[in-house]
Amino acid sequence: MSVFTTVTPDDLAPFLKRYCIGQLVELKGIAAGVTNTNFFVTTTHGRYVLTLFETLQAEELPYYVNLLAHLAHHGIASAAPIANLDDQYVDTLNGKPTLLVTCLPGKVAEHPNTTQCAEVGEMLAQMHLASRSYGGYMKNPRGVQWWADTAAQVAPFMSAADADLLRAEVALQQTTDYRALPAGMVHADLFRDNVLMDGDRVGGFIDFYYACNDAWLYDVAIALNDWCSTADGDIDDARARAFLKGYTGVRELDAAEKSAWPTMLRGAALRFWTSRLLDFHKPASGEMTFAKDPTHFQRVIEHHIRRQDFWLS
Amino acid sequence: MSVFTTVTPDDLAPFLKRYCIGQLVELKGIAAGVTNTNFFVTTTHGRYVLTLFETLQAEELPYYVNLLAHLAHHGIASAAPIANLDDQYVDTLNGKPTLLVTCLPGKVAEHPNTTQCAEVGEMLAQMHLASRSYGGYMKNPRGVQWWADTAAQVAPFMSAADADLLRAEVALQQTTDYRALPAGMVHADLFRDNVLMDGDRVGGFIDFYYACNDAWLYDVAIALNDWCSTADGDIDDARARAFLKGYTGVRELDAAEKSAWPTMLRGAALRFWTSRLLDFHKPASGEMTFAKDPTHFQRVIEHHIRRQDFWLS
Repeated sequence: MSVFTTVTPDDLAPFLKRYCIGQLVELKGIAAGVTNTNFFVTTTHGRYVLTLFETLQAEELPYYVNLLAHLAHHGIASAAPIANLDDQYVDTLNGKPTLLVTCLPGKVAEHPNTTQCAEVGEMLAQMHLASRSYGGYMKNPRGVQWWADTAAQVAPFMSAADADLLRAEVALQQTTDYRALPAGMVHADLFRDNVLMDGDRVGGFIDFYYACNDAWLYDVAIALNDWCSTADGDIDDARARAFLKGYTGVRELDAAEKSAWPTMLRGAALRFWTSRLLDFHKPASGEMTFAKDPTHFQRVIEHHIRRQDFWLS
Repeated sequence: MSVFTTVTPDDLAPFLKRYCIGQLVELKGIAAGVTNTNFFVTTTHGRYVLTLFETLQAEELPYYVNLLAHLAHHGIASAAPIANLDDQYVDTLNGKPTLLVTCLPGKVAEHPNTTQCAEVGEMLAQMHLASRSYGGYMKNPRGVQWWADTAAQVAPFMSAADADLLRAEVALQQTTDYRALPAGMVHADLFRDNVLMDGDRVGGFIDFYYACNDAWLYDVAIALNDWCSTADGDIDDARARAFLKGYTGVRELDAAEKSAWPTMLRGAALRFWTSRLLDFHKPASGEMTFAKDPTHFQRVIEHHIRRQDFWLS
């Protein structure tokens, strides 16, 4: 249960009086989420999600909050922030900065079908296009340099062969120049558990707190590596083709992107291989979350290395 | 059928490419609406309403469009405008300025119950509070002076007794000073047919194109005169009490408002008595709309004159 800050209905009543969303009917903690505290807030007007930010700093919030508002204004399936009577999206409750957003329909698809993969690809491309007019900027805090630094920290815990592969992959990414690729805002963590599916349609993208500016192709590769992967780390061809068809139906990949694609798929996997290795070998003190299996993304990379076909044709 | 400007799926395809809301599934004209052309636009992402503005001028649009966006950001049940890829709410189609908004749930309640009246009153108060932080300003184009001018135009068509009542009511309103009343943005036309009810809940307020700045009490009176009236122009006490209880549960009326209330109810009725008289006796050339019965609001005024109890206690 990831409710780090307790909120009672009595705490919430004066808070809700600063909003125009009616009276509290039900307040319920949300177990998911490892860095923020989230509640379902049901009022006489509808259902909302209240987030209390536990680690993000006040100066970091505008990038994320204004991004959510921007995407919602453009019809991207994402939570729309609700402003308070002072016309502010960020408020305060029990000493923590808060955000109140609309509740999205749908649930996580553990085993997505090809139609769902196509719809996610399509919405991802629409999100990239919508973000072009967003003025905010956030450097990717987990880019190639972070992968290299993290690899150096975790390599001593690994077998010689695995550490060699890790170092070789870091070296490949460090010597690849992605600067010619179309770039903009990326979600950077669009795994299955960050998308609510409403049947075969996208109910909403959630958890934008890794969003930053980077190559759009990086976002495509991160999402495809998760949405289309099998339990053994291989990629399911039918889902991958559907995902890319959905994406490129809205935004065609250019020549530079097609050329960078096989390497980017490995980079996107390396991003999560390194972070999971770090969580596994050097968990943050006091962290009670379940460290995810780091070897999954090693296998994804190994499959990409052996692969000949990258679903572009 | 009030589709003044024809739009085909072929017209819409390039238009929708400037948005992030998916591919067209269905396009359907909306019969309601007497001054704009409206379509239901169903896409792979959802259902939207497209408005082509037939009479509003480009310089008038920002007040309404930004107001809709402001209210939607605050969680008021109203249509949220969708921005295009240039981050603009207003676009152009077939030579007309356009607005694309989310589709709201619910349908018009012809015979509202007391719960529905209470919910509408509550949402109206929330809307008034939310509008305090809205920066736009629009003078009421149909204020007391317009009632007086219109009364002078239509009086020659009326019986002497009716014309006397009309002139007396105009005189009463012209000599009443409403300037001490709390004021802000008002919908100014919140009749039953401008609210979608989703069961007993407010699905959405629609048709904000009479919205302007005026006393909030004027908005309360306009809505109550319609939501709580009977076919003979009397007001149903149970619905009126429920409506006011819903409203004042969010925003209490102050002493000046309580004092002005009986007169304001007659002023709000006079607003529609005069405009319906004008539509009836001097229809705009070429207008094919059904002129509504002007005598209904005469009877509302007559009932208010005879009334002792105004549901405030």
